[in-house]
Amino acid sequence: VSFSFALRFKGLAYKTHWLGYADIEPVAKSLGVTPTGTKPDGTPRYTIPFIYDSTTNKFVSNSFDIIEYLDSTYPNTVTFIPPETRLLQNVFEQSQSTLLGQLDPVFRSHFPNSKILPQNLKLVQSLGLLSTLTKEEEKEAWKKFKNALDELSKFAKDEGPFVMGKKVSAADAVLFGRLACYRWMWEETDEWKDLMTWQGGRWRRLFEAYESLPQVEKCDEYEVE
Amino acid sequence: VSFSFALRFKGLAYKTHWLGYADIEPVAKSLGVTPTGTKPDGTPRYTIPFIYDSTTNKFVSNSFDIIEYLDSTYPNTVTFIPPETRLLQNVFEQSQSTLLGQLDPVFRSHFPNSKILPQNLKLVQSLGLLSTLTKEEEKEAWKKFKNALDELSKFAKDEGPFVMGKKVSAADAVLFGRLACYRWMWEETDEWKDLMTWQGGRWRRLFEAYESLPQVEKCDEYEVE
Repeated sequence: VSFSFALRFKGLAYKTHWLGYADIEPVAKSLGVTPTGTKPDGTPRYTIPFIYDSTTNKFVSNSFDIIEYLDSTYPNTVTFIPPETRLLQNVFEQSQSTLLGQLDPVFRSHFPNSKILPQNLKLVQSLGLLSTLTKEEEKEAWKKFKNALDELSKFAKDEGPFVMGKKVSAADAVLFGRLACYRWMWEETDEWKDLMTWQGGRWRRLFEAYESLPQVEKCDEYEVE
Repeated sequence: VSFSFALRFKGLAYKTHWLGYADIEPVAKSLGVTPTGTKPDGTPRYTIPFIYDSTTNKFVSNSFDIIEYLDSTYPNTVTFIPPETRLLQNVFEQSQSTLLGQLDPVFRSHFPNSKILPQNLKLVQSLGLLSTLTKEEEKEAWKKFKNALDELSKFAKDEGPFVMGKKVSAADAVLFGRLACYRWMWEETDEWKDLMTWQGGRWRRLFEAYESLPQVEKCDEYEVE
């Protein structure tokens, strides 16, 4: 989700293919995608997202590397990682789940009612990742998430709606990625409508900035086995 | 330590007063310093560092606020928080102990042999913060710290020695703050000499950049009760 944000700002057309969790490794391996890490047992770990660029005939994995690849391969598009901020952007990406993970258990507790791929739900269940929370605990988590965004917004340039003020960058793709998941889960709810008013409507304006740009996703092609 | 780095780059003269841990709250209170947070029991928390600026007759607490205060009060000095990077700099500061805390237990295990104020040592002992580590565990921690700095350096601009390349910023003050503590503890050791060679001598060059600037600390005045 986060790099589809970058692709839209860059005006680069793309198609999305969805993979069930269990298919990530075999598909990535068969395509020759670079693994993004190592599993505890020492074997390579493959993760989504990865992209295939038909112009250069290249596969690129790892969100940060993808954005960097797009910056250097398409230098006439908006730069998402201003070179001077490269380490700062990377630390922001690495830190976001610590800073903004308050809703993660609430999100997981709502998986069973969501549009999630059935095989992924089964996996999530088998891994014991589903949580059940009381209404009170959910409320508390939303409050903490709001506080975390308050804290974040306090330091962002007022002019907004981007982390660097008027200049969009990789950090916004990271924030958008998280918020777009929440929208997917909660779009019609009061919680989401409320979130759109937080911090002076900052996140509503982020979505508006994204949506004001031409759609670059060519078609929704789902590949579910 | 981190804002003395900023003061030196800014060329602003200062004196240091050291406070025993138990004196922080009463001294800060008596001077009217703004608390930087809230303790679990709901009462205000006072922390060091805080500064007193005799030019403006102001006290400022909290490292990030101090640097920001210096940027705005002395606009003709090097800007440590370029406005566009304000949130990124703040997240970097918040995340540094998670990203680079691998040596913390080793550091604490060496407290008793260090130049630490005796009353602080007593406090650290009473809080059970002292750790005892085997040589193997220490070695492992140093290795992990090196890996973390490798990871960090991978994303920093090559030209260095600063996080933003040739431009010094608050993130460097944060890194310098941690490394200067390690130098204070380990200056004469092989570990420190080794660290100075890591990542192509990146940290040696950071210290050199700092030390090549005129000393601005007016005198070492210790206030130990």
